[in-house]
Amino acid sequence: MYSTITENISKAIRNIPDFPVKGIQFKDITTVIRQPVLFAQITDLIAAQYANKGITKVVAIESRGFITGGTLAYKLGAGFVPVRKPGKLPSSTYGVTYDLEYGQDSLEIHRDALDKDDIVLLHDDLLATGGTALAALGLIKRFPVQQVFAAFIIELEMLNGRQRLAQHCDVFSLVRF
Amino acid sequence: MYSTITENISKAIRNIPDFPVKGIQFKDITTVIRQPVLFAQITDLIAAQYANKGITKVVAIESRGFITGGTLAYKLGAGFVPVRKPGKLPSSTYGVTYDLEYGQDSLEIHRDALDKDDIVLLHDDLLATGGTALAALGLIKRFPVQQVFAAFIIELEMLNGRQRLAQHCDVFSLVRF
Repeated sequence: MYSTITENISKAIRNIPDFPVKGIQFKDITTVIRQPVLFAQITDLIAAQYANKGITKVVAIESRGFITGGTLAYKLGAGFVPVRKPGKLPSSTYGVTYDLEYGQDSLEIHRDALDKDDIVLLHDDLLATGGTALAALGLIKRFPVQQVFAAFIIELEMLNGRQRLAQHCDVFSLVRF
Repeated sequence: MYSTITENISKAIRNIPDFPVKGIQFKDITTVIRQPVLFAQITDLIAAQYANKGITKVVAIESRGFITGGTLAYKLGAGFVPVRKPGKLPSSTYGVTYDLEYGQDSLEIHRDALDKDDIVLLHDDLLATGGTALAALGLIKRFPVQQVFAAFIIELEMLNGRQRLAQHCDVFSLVRF
């Protein structure tokens, strides 16, 4: 059952060659999430991994991570915390700059987003090199939270993001390429 | 009950003066959605308005609209369709450029996002002048969909966005300033 569903999700992902730059095989999830059943199953299957973990906050990375980050928070009965590009969060923030697959980027989190009792699920749609997720993890670690897990819809295995992240937290992905 | 909940949501919204530019009173929902109960109630109360409407797709506007757009699609058993800034959607798109409260902006939607059987709920966190929502509505109208509704968490009444939108679709907002 689980493998049939993840296979259907995997098949529904659209591959876009050379986007956003030449050499990148972009995994487009819009062809998955526009289908009601598959959209719900992504959330349900990921949330099921954390049913007994006591997740209190889902921290999701702008922008695609917001879509299923929201549904995961809703399903898990957790609060939602956005990690955003610089200048987007209106109150006082922590920031981080990092290297990513194609270029450099920065992320911010509100300084009042998390507290010491939180058990955090970090979420993004895609785990590639892990650069973005590691940066977000660095932001989360500015707070004295209880525990951090990381969950992704898609993992690009050959880019070894899991190895980089696994030193810092438990890592789960739904489909792998 | 309904009014108690919306009052709690309203009170939890953080007002940020002069963000992103001088003269704008920015309504920050991060202080609401980080609270599990309030986050769930936003979704449940908005979704309840559309329980018998047969919504098949939630079209949500980048980025904050993605958070509760996702949960609304999940709750309503609908598919999720993102409307994004230019260059973000990887496949063939329709685009629109429009004036907004402070400046000008453009939005895109995938050309395969909607079809003739769809009953659409357009969603964003905030209804201000209605410029962004009208632009997104214009994108939706490129498709021969059955019907369109629009729902927002917050409505800034003095900016008259509702009047501009109501000519084209049914409009709902959860809390008003």
